[in-house]
Amino acid sequence: MRERAKGTVGELGEFGLIRELTSRLTSTTAVRIGPGDDAAVVAAPDRRVVATTDVLLEGRHFRRDWSTAYDVGRKAAAQNMADIAAMGAYPTALLLGLVVPVDLPANWPTEMMDGIRDEAQVASAAVVGGDVVRGDSVVLSITALGDLRNTDPVTRSGAGAGDVVAVTGWLGWSAAGHAVLTRGFRSPRAFVEAHRRPEPPYHAGPAAAGLGATAMIDVSDGLVADLGHIAEASKVRIDIRSADLDIPAQMSDIGQAVGVDPLQWVLTGGEDHAIVATFPREQKLPARWRVIGEVLAPSALPHVTVDGAPWTRTGGWDHFSDDIDG
Amino acid sequence: MRERAKGTVGELGEFGLIRELTSRLTSTTAVRIGPGDDAAVVAAPDRRVVATTDVLLEGRHFRRDWSTAYDVGRKAAAQNMADIAAMGAYPTALLLGLVVPVDLPANWPTEMMDGIRDEAQVASAAVVGGDVVRGDSVVLSITALGDLRNTDPVTRSGAGAGDVVAVTGWLGWSAAGHAVLTRGFRSPRAFVEAHRRPEPPYHAGPAAAGLGATAMIDVSDGLVADLGHIAEASKVRIDIRSADLDIPAQMSDIGQAVGVDPLQWVLTGGEDHAIVATFPREQKLPARWRVIGEVLAPSALPHVTVDGAPWTRTGGWDHFSDDIDG
Repeated sequence: MRERAKGTVGELGEFGLIRELTSRLTSTTAVRIGPGDDAAVVAAPDRRVVATTDVLLEGRHFRRDWSTAYDVGRKAAAQNMADIAAMGAYPTALLLGLVVPVDLPANWPTEMMDGIRDEAQVASAAVVGGDVVRGDSVVLSITALGDLRNTDPVTRSGAGAGDVVAVTGWLGWSAAGHAVLTRGFRSPRAFVEAHRRPEPPYHAGPAAAGLGATAMIDVSDGLVADLGHIAEASKVRIDIRSADLDIPAQMSDIGQAVGVDPLQWVLTGGEDHAIVATFPREQKLPARWRVIGEVLAPSALPHVTVDGAPWTRTGGWDHFSDDIDG
Repeated sequence: MRERAKGTVGELGEFGLIRELTSRLTSTTAVRIGPGDDAAVVAAPDRRVVATTDVLLEGRHFRRDWSTAYDVGRKAAAQNMADIAAMGAYPTALLLGLVVPVDLPANWPTEMMDGIRDEAQVASAAVVGGDVVRGDSVVLSITALGDLRNTDPVTRSGAGAGDVVAVTGWLGWSAAGHAVLTRGFRSPRAFVEAHRRPEPPYHAGPAAAGLGATAMIDVSDGLVADLGHIAEASKVRIDIRSADLDIPAQMSDIGQAVGVDPLQWVLTGGEDHAIVATFPREQKLPARWRVIGEVLAPSALPHVTVDGAPWTRTGGWDHFSDDIDG
């Protein structure tokens, strides 16, 4: 365990904070030049690089009283690397744009960096660079890079009528945990933990590409909304069979306690970063994939239906609407 | 000319704004998958990718009353791509993390995006992805990617005693323009323009790598500060000959008018994104490179000296100190 950084980030200063942050990092063989130069250099053996950026704001995407800095870091890294995995690629590197208030305790960004580093290690990636500036509230912008290892990327647009829809990872757990936390509770712990620290099935993305997935996305806006992105891009309709969705007994108990149909969490909860993909019907899928629906020709119905009918309740987050910090 | 976006970003909504922003983009042959999927895919023919992230805050790195949205976009893209060039690489792609207040006029981010796009085109790069979220003030986090085209990257750490120091691009122009603006003037126009829209010599980075540059950096913190980064990383001392620096007559006039020694701007002004590099003494340099000093063995003197003596005035920005919006 490293010593905790002392004082505020203002007391540490820009260069002091950057030193503290970079001293915590680990590297991988893919990192040719890490932090400290004008730019980083990362191996891209496939001759193509996969890249994605996400921005997280304090008070909007995380709350400092609900999540530790460490968990915020893990979550931020996880959601970016899930996007890389959902293209069928292996995460290789992360870059961090960080805004911090001067009066922020210095151990907040350093512990957040520990979280980013540890989550990167889960996916065999490393933090290779970034920028830190002073501002009014905490903003994290993370860019993840990945390598396709000679597999073609799996986009949102390749689903065809007759394909099956399958999912791996967790669905609705983060939303159930969020519901628990908003009501001031701290348990059941598994759901609260799922909200604080998602565990995307990184390996499943490239594996799905290898299994011939025709379209793929990570579930960040909710299953219905994200399948909607696939259906729209692929010009198809997708029907989800609710009976095939996994609703654990404990999630039902929480639903009953807080007066929410847990199906709502599973269908519209984001942030677990499950991976959902479409596959040719004849493709045999490993046990960790659960077939939850099918791809149909487009019709007058919405892009995504549940048991053949429109899903009328809230469908995914719009980050511009109020009071959602999901 | 595209139609101006109407209303506020809140009225447009997240998806509406993203549609407006992506509809303005252009592409290049390096872009295999552009915006709209989980992640972008960009060619990396060298099998290594160069990557850097910078964060710009409203009120700190730009002011909406001094710079147009278009110029903010160009500047943000320029400073990132200058970092790529300073490694000896060619910029290929940009990713954008954007925070916007709901009451921001929608044409602000769209015009900013026009600026990013146009600056990217100057360097033959393209915007390939990003994220947009709502927040209290404008934050831009830009990640630039680049390709080395089979040249080894030029770091900060390869300068050796006996090398010459040479610079190409503009030095002190942005700082002089900033001085003009802070005093409420709008001219001389060339300096105000240089502050609003730097013109990094992108081509010069890879060219310097080809000429055998031993160390290289783009001047973003000021010449003394950035040469200090080279000297520190290379464990050498660097001496600048002030007589060899270019101080245009008009810059001297501004200095006289505002009571500042223009040498101060040339030595410590950031943001012009000139490229400064060290070369073996015997290397013949093209006319656009100006030899301004030499690399010496380390001594008791500071890392960087001017005419053999310490430079005692302010050296570069510390983004955590007050009242610098550079």
